[in-house]
Amino acid sequence: MRFDCTAPVSAHSALEEIRSVVQEHRGSFLEQLKRFVAQPSVSATGEGVEDCAKMTEGVLKQLGFHTSTYRPGGTYPVVFGELKSSRSSKTLLLYNHYDVQPVDPLDEWKTPPFEPRVIQGKLYGRGVADDKGDFIARACAIQALQEKSIELPVSLKWVVEGEEEEGSVHLHEYVESHAKELGADACLWEGSELNPKGRPHFYLGVKGLLYVEISLKTAEGDRHSMNAPIIPNPAWKLVWALSKMKGDNEEIKIGGFYDDVRRPSKEDLAMLEEIEFDDEETMRLLGVKAFLGGLKGTKLLERLVFSPTCNIAGFGSGYTGPGSKTIVPGRGMVKIDFRLVPDQKPHDILLKLKKFLEDQGLADAEVTVFGEEMPARTSPSTPVVRAASDACRQVYGVDPNVWPSMYATGPMALFNNIARVPSVMVNSVAYPGSSYHAPNEHIFVDHYLKGIEHLALTFFLYGS
Amino acid sequence: MRFDCTAPVSAHSALEEIRSVVQEHRGSFLEQLKRFVAQPSVSATGEGVEDCAKMTEGVLKQLGFHTSTYRPGGTYPVVFGELKSSRSSKTLLLYNHYDVQPVDPLDEWKTPPFEPRVIQGKLYGRGVADDKGDFIARACAIQALQEKSIELPVSLKWVVEGEEEEGSVHLHEYVESHAKELGADACLWEGSELNPKGRPHFYLGVKGLLYVEISLKTAEGDRHSMNAPIIPNPAWKLVWALSKMKGDNEEIKIGGFYDDVRRPSKEDLAMLEEIEFDDEETMRLLGVKAFLGGLKGTKLLERLVFSPTCNIAGFGSGYTGPGSKTIVPGRGMVKIDFRLVPDQKPHDILLKLKKFLEDQGLADAEVTVFGEEMPARTSPSTPVVRAASDACRQVYGVDPNVWPSMYATGPMALFNNIARVPSVMVNSVAYPGSSYHAPNEHIFVDHYLKGIEHLALTFFLYGS
Repeated sequence: MRFDCTAPVSAHSALEEIRSVVQEHRGSFLEQLKRFVAQPSVSATGEGVEDCAKMTEGVLKQLGFHTSTYRPGGTYPVVFGELKSSRSSKTLLLYNHYDVQPVDPLDEWKTPPFEPRVIQGKLYGRGVADDKGDFIARACAIQALQEKSIELPVSLKWVVEGEEEEGSVHLHEYVESHAKELGADACLWEGSELNPKGRPHFYLGVKGLLYVEISLKTAEGDRHSMNAPIIPNPAWKLVWALSKMKGDNEEIKIGGFYDDVRRPSKEDLAMLEEIEFDDEETMRLLGVKAFLGGLKGTKLLERLVFSPTCNIAGFGSGYTGPGSKTIVPGRGMVKIDFRLVPDQKPHDILLKLKKFLEDQGLADAEVTVFGEEMPARTSPSTPVVRAASDACRQVYGVDPNVWPSMYATGPMALFNNIARVPSVMVNSVAYPGSSYHAPNEHIFVDHYLKGIEHLALTFFLYGS
Repeated sequence: MRFDCTAPVSAHSALEEIRSVVQEHRGSFLEQLKRFVAQPSVSATGEGVEDCAKMTEGVLKQLGFHTSTYRPGGTYPVVFGELKSSRSSKTLLLYNHYDVQPVDPLDEWKTPPFEPRVIQGKLYGRGVADDKGDFIARACAIQALQEKSIELPVSLKWVVEGEEEEGSVHLHEYVESHAKELGADACLWEGSELNPKGRPHFYLGVKGLLYVEISLKTAEGDRHSMNAPIIPNPAWKLVWALSKMKGDNEEIKIGGFYDDVRRPSKEDLAMLEEIEFDDEETMRLLGVKAFLGGLKGTKLLERLVFSPTCNIAGFGSGYTGPGSKTIVPGRGMVKIDFRLVPDQKPHDILLKLKKFLEDQGLADAEVTVFGEEMPARTSPSTPVVRAASDACRQVYGVDPNVWPSMYATGPMALFNNIARVPSVMVNSVAYPGSSYHAPNEHIFVDHYLKGIEHLALTFFLYGS
């Protein structure tokens, strides 16, 4: 097979060629990923982020991309690259991020998070599933095509940012000022996921996000708890306000919170009906005994995809070490992530939250925003979805599970709404047991290699 | 003055003698305390506790006490000592503890907690106020009397334990098995406090305590918060249960919690009326803007002394570091201290708490008890209160503020009820701004030296 030949090449023979190249390079493809994972890049603390940005640009340069970097708002670099194909007038934009979540609780990792290791067919390390595995799989897919071709089947643009795990706070500045440069026919968003049986999920949207830290200080330091009858306790004040923010029936009681929620359409619900989702297996992989409200099947998926959330991601006040310490804490802090659905707007929810806190007598609480992202949706009729679906059938032997939206968040709305590039998530190296954002994050090595094949074939089919 | 002379010595001349000795030795008395504070003894973590026990026994031996040590339940040593006087048939039992609270948050200390330092007349260091200052002040008072006398004015017994800050969990085993050895006419409990003007508070009782950690695990580790719509969140579950445990009007709603609360007597309330307590100054020293419920004066004291509490001393769940991390926590933990009043019993409250948690659907929460102590009260007519009051007038020039009970806790009930020794708190080196259990714990050096004088004179007057 030659990708630069003029005669048409069947998808089947293209796949065979790709498969043999991936097989031949499997050792080096795995090493490339391990090297990239070994470089810390924790955007929450800054650990290693700058070095990882340089490494990211190096990966693109190595593939022949013309690269440039930007620092919107002075933050970590956005790496941009472009690689033109004279064979095709079509352009795909790729989006990834090179930053990762913090590693704590460190003592729950079985292997050091930045010393990637393969154990029983699984590669462990921070970022292997989110999102370094996807990024390097794409690089390897391009490399695989280049092995056989002097020319790519489709022009590529690539944006790799370093602030995604912090809510891509400054990315909008970059996209707004470079909307034209980012122009493309479609955008392949960062990786989606395989279901527990190894069948790919496609996601045609993302939820929005508002991430806040609410901090309350009631005294200049902790006090002996003998004073508890007469002095305020910030942990109690937060508890009382939180209990009114969301009831134990999961209803969010911030005034006007649900006002802009778009109800799922019939087409949306029909897509859910087609999705293969093993409740029991997902429960096992997530390590929970039951789903909230005892939900199952399509009702469970509807809740997952179409419900906005108000989630306590962290609560800290007073003494949390071993044994006892009898104090009234001087401060309390809660971190909350709200996942939003169309047409909720993070800034509007922030204002409603502040109003709610005032109404609860917490006007003096400090609210710090660590992330605001709009929800996004792309139509299932977008052509790249077809190419990725065809490639999916070839590589995995099954139709993909096509979801109206991912239930996680990414800055997809920036690309959809500002750069006007419809974005989809159609490639996967991770699975529900990957422990994203948690200790022992991992992927299967086989999923990684198949992901490379699927990406290469998607590029080929879309360009043909 | 010679304490062993047969001629009566007036309180006034005794005080003058004591004062001159304390003045002469002020440097060495301060050094003795600094040396003792420099030895860490954090019972919550075990840091330095064994070494501090040896040091404690050394202090007693140095004074001529016959000492022995015990390890009730295999825990940190209880140091016991006895020093007989042939001049008096009366015996005072002294109670102190050599352990201290943890030092965190370490970054809020202006000086290293175990490197005691005098700054502008104040001695800073962990334990100077609670309870190492009181312990060494007693040792110095005995030393001061011995300077002038071959014989003490009263026989002394001394119990110094190392587990008080952990709720004296095992002390009852020691007291039960040594009740006879501990026999005495009265017990001088660990230090009380001076009010902001330097006037001593006497406390004729303590509150009881139940300290628990309630821990809830809902998943095998933290999970990506995209799963928030369908999986349980332990922080939310704790928030909902806590909000039902105590309302924002401070009413504790655990079934039967108030059943055994003894209402204050007329005599109790009359004692409160006599207490000089500067609300504004206390507010300033505690660093709070207002007292709960806007209480003032005697109503404030009534709440402080006679109300049981349910205090969140610590709440920890999920990510509490800098920036954001989008997870559903796998575990949540809350530490609560209940301060109890006569005739509440900690074990009874524990059973009621467990019932409450079951009723809230938290039967699977793990409840760990870190402290159970009974409340205690001693009659104001106990003779040693008179001796200490007389000494107070001599040394401080004022009547003491006599409280029906301290609003903090100690294992006084063991001595009152099991060893049958009425216990009172009538000596002070600390004041409300001492930051007990908190960063920058400190006392005034002058308070420390006056405390030594008051103790020596109390021994003298009680023995005479």
